[in-house]
Amino acid sequence: MNKQIILTGDRPTGPLHLGHYVGSLKNRVRLQYDYDEYVIVADAQALTDNAENPEKVRANIMEVTLDYLAVGIDPSVTTIFIQSLIPEIAELTMYYMNLVTLSRLQRNPTVKQEMGQKGFGASIPVGFLVYPVSQAADITAFRANLVPVGADQLPMIEQTVEIVRRFNAVYKPILVEPEAMIPETIARLPGIDGQGKMGKSLGNGIFLGDSSDDVRRKVKGMYTDPNHVRVQDPGKVDGNPVFTYLDAFCPDSEMTKLVAMKEHYQKGGLGDTVVKEYLNDILQEFLGPIRSRRIEFSKDPAEVMNILRRGTDHAREVAARTLSEVRKAMGINYF
Amino acid sequence: MNKQIILTGDRPTGPLHLGHYVGSLKNRVRLQYDYDEYVIVADAQALTDNAENPEKVRANIMEVTLDYLAVGIDPSVTTIFIQSLIPEIAELTMYYMNLVTLSRLQRNPTVKQEMGQKGFGASIPVGFLVYPVSQAADITAFRANLVPVGADQLPMIEQTVEIVRRFNAVYKPILVEPEAMIPETIARLPGIDGQGKMGKSLGNGIFLGDSSDDVRRKVKGMYTDPNHVRVQDPGKVDGNPVFTYLDAFCPDSEMTKLVAMKEHYQKGGLGDTVVKEYLNDILQEFLGPIRSRRIEFSKDPAEVMNILRRGTDHAREVAARTLSEVRKAMGINYF
Repeated sequence: MNKQIILTGDRPTGPLHLGHYVGSLKNRVRLQYDYDEYVIVADAQALTDNAENPEKVRANIMEVTLDYLAVGIDPSVTTIFIQSLIPEIAELTMYYMNLVTLSRLQRNPTVKQEMGQKGFGASIPVGFLVYPVSQAADITAFRANLVPVGADQLPMIEQTVEIVRRFNAVYKPILVEPEAMIPETIARLPGIDGQGKMGKSLGNGIFLGDSSDDVRRKVKGMYTDPNHVRVQDPGKVDGNPVFTYLDAFCPDSEMTKLVAMKEHYQKGGLGDTVVKEYLNDILQEFLGPIRSRRIEFSKDPAEVMNILRRGTDHAREVAARTLSEVRKAMGINYF
Repeated sequence: MNKQIILTGDRPTGPLHLGHYVGSLKNRVRLQYDYDEYVIVADAQALTDNAENPEKVRANIMEVTLDYLAVGIDPSVTTIFIQSLIPEIAELTMYYMNLVTLSRLQRNPTVKQEMGQKGFGASIPVGFLVYPVSQAADITAFRANLVPVGADQLPMIEQTVEIVRRFNAVYKPILVEPEAMIPETIARLPGIDGQGKMGKSLGNGIFLGDSSDDVRRKVKGMYTDPNHVRVQDPGKVDGNPVFTYLDAFCPDSEMTKLVAMKEHYQKGGLGDTVVKEYLNDILQEFLGPIRSRRIEFSKDPAEVMNILRRGTDHAREVAARTLSEVRKAMGINYF
């Protein structure tokens, strides 16, 4: 039986952090041998709101790919590829745009929210408005039936499903309808400042490539329970980022210790410094091998580019087959 | 010195008629040896408002190409190509969409007018809204500096110029700014019903492929001066489609006769039947050789497709060079 197909990926707008690891990278590594996994480095999508900053996008293709390889995404089973080098995605986007109305796109809750965050309004670049259609092209080009997303990204999958249904009804039923795959693990890691989620650009992240010193410094400065002033005060564990990180990164062998520590903290008598030192140990242990692999790979950027090239070549073959079927279904396969 | 580059073309949504001949085909034939001419069969653009009718677009690619060849567009000097087979146009469109805002597109007078005509509103397909951006891709892909258009299409050229300037300012000045080329001849031929312009779908056209009988019948039924009831009545020449057609199609050698005929008609004593018979003679003379060539070419559709294939191959080479420069200017030429 054929494996199910997963499409996932990132905009290359910054290096990846612990939030990405917990929210998606960990799952990608876990699932890659049981599924046919495509990881898209979505540079064209990144350009939709970084048109004036292409060098940022360019530089981060390397950073993001190093992060993938460092955490254990295995290019011998997983197809890592660069979006803008798959012209078939642009072509599918053009055809799908004819099946979606302007008002439908404007109603997309994710686009609406991101428009607000970025302060666009009517001055929204058309490319940004249209990116859900382009995402439908990403997903369908590889016949993905599973797309791992956070709950806030569900409207994007719904948009793809609508396009697939419309295409299949108007032409021929050849496109695969994808399903969202909501990860079981904690989807969102808070920032070290405790302010919402960890963000690439919010300055509140611990990055996979951070040095040992940076990690120590960031953990030391982490937000905890603001009412836990003196060591003897009882402290809160829920909503305390230090404990959220411990929950996410403590290995099973340390669970008894963590449970005891939480009780102690809630009762009072356990200082933040001690807990942070423990978290630092755990994170250093976790990030150490990732950092080493990252440094190792970064010594040979040509080989990293080769990995991307091979993945992109394979992705193009698959996307070209889909485009060919799409054109046939539309009856515009002329030659 | 290099020749200047012209981009022109048609949506393949129906066979071409006398209006197309007067408004553009005649100029294309005249200019093709002095300019480097690209004629785009804009099937992807036709699909933006014919998504549910791809078979119409498909069928008319052949019809339109037969019309081109029949009127004398010479594929040994002119590049006739199929838009949807140039993926670089879709790719350029994606990058240009990031440089245009939604409100700018919504203000485009041509789009606004066509939206009204087609009764879209907010249910406008995104592809249709976006087609001015796609047109900018058509034009710039071939580094065209001249685009023959009617006055009503000027806003489309302005949109392209804006995109070119924005691209050249944000990245590097590599794109060519096109200019509109307003034809000197009568830009618009009225329909045989005298109602506005001749239209592909308005049932008021004389088509280049019409049979001799069809032409005769259509001319016979043409709208003239409604106040010219009896032969002896004075008739109007201005705004009388029969005379407009005579102005457009009378060979120079017949001008003295035409001037005399107009005077006679205005004075009274010249019946519509006589004028129409004269127009019929002129049009049969004009259309006869076109029809013969059309029939000749249509006997070998494989050769017509080969002409399109060769044109498309050449167009792809040129567009690929432009895309490569575009990616280089944007700094996203990774490999």
